[in-house]
Amino acid sequence: MSSVRIIGIDPGLRHCGWGVIEAEGSRLRYIASGRISPSPKDELATRLCALLDGLERVLNDQKPQEAAVEETFVNRDPRSALKLGQARGVCLLAPARYGIEVAEYAANLIKKSVVGTGHADKTQVSDMVSRLLPGSRAESADAADALAIALCHSFHRKARMLTAS
Amino acid sequence: MSSVRIIGIDPGLRHCGWGVIEAEGSRLRYIASGRISPSPKDELATRLCALLDGLERVLNDQKPQEAAVEETFVNRDPRSALKLGQARGVCLLAPARYGIEVAEYAANLIKKSVVGTGHADKTQVSDMVSRLLPGSRAESADAADALAIALCHSFHRKARMLTAS
Repeated sequence: MSSVRIIGIDPGLRHCGWGVIEAEGSRLRYIASGRISPSPKDELATRLCALLDGLERVLNDQKPQEAAVEETFVNRDPRSALKLGQARGVCLLAPARYGIEVAEYAANLIKKSVVGTGHADKTQVSDMVSRLLPGSRAESADAADALAIALCHSFHRKARMLTAS
Repeated sequence: MSSVRIIGIDPGLRHCGWGVIEAEGSRLRYIASGRISPSPKDELATRLCALLDGLERVLNDQKPQEAAVEETFVNRDPRSALKLGQARGVCLLAPARYGIEVAEYAANLIKKSVVGTGHADKTQVSDMVSRLLPGSRAESADAADALAIALCHSFHRKARMLTAS
């Protein structure tokens, strides 16, 4: 069975988490993770630029074949939604520009897929990520979230394959 | 007095307007305008990619030295704000990546600067744009709005220069 390399991206302007895994059937392997943190002192346009540069560097280094981005849950005021949208647009754009498919998953589906419940907190997510990816070194909650997004995609693309066969 | 070439951008995922003018002191000249309309049939990531590609093409063709983007007025629900934010992030990013300064102006300041009132409608904006830029050929309301944004920047950068001298 051939393996697939997946990047998960947790959008954010202050901190954008990323995590790369390799899935071969039900075998999952941690590859790398980290976060991109554009300087909050810079202007918005410059920060978005730094975010795209950072993501492009990660894509070129890690060479993923599929991408998954968290579908932002919007329960806050329109101003924060606009701000988050600006970063999220860049996170969707980067892998598409790199030439790979971008899947989107709702935050509660990601938690449900990885932890078993849609209401899991950050610690539960990060614990399950460490258990599913032995040897993973998620340096931050953002990186752990991004790995959870990649894991969620690995489960759902597999389900799709089973349905199709 | 040296001239400056300004691009105005009216963010939008369905239609993103752009307009380029040249300002030399109080003399204003229409250079070009248009709009970028990523196919609504494509996935969001692909549409954002098409938007960036389109803006990069315009920047490379028109070679502006300064950019101005409309500050989106958010009075709608968070979901639309998130959507608009995604397109707006790309519109801010493109000129920053091209290497020029990006100024942001609120929609009512743009209308006030160009028409004289913050509550001007689309037709009034487009009429004033045609009057201020004889020979301009804004093919759409989006392109006329983008030219208004560029005009607004030309007025305000001039005011800043007078204040500084």
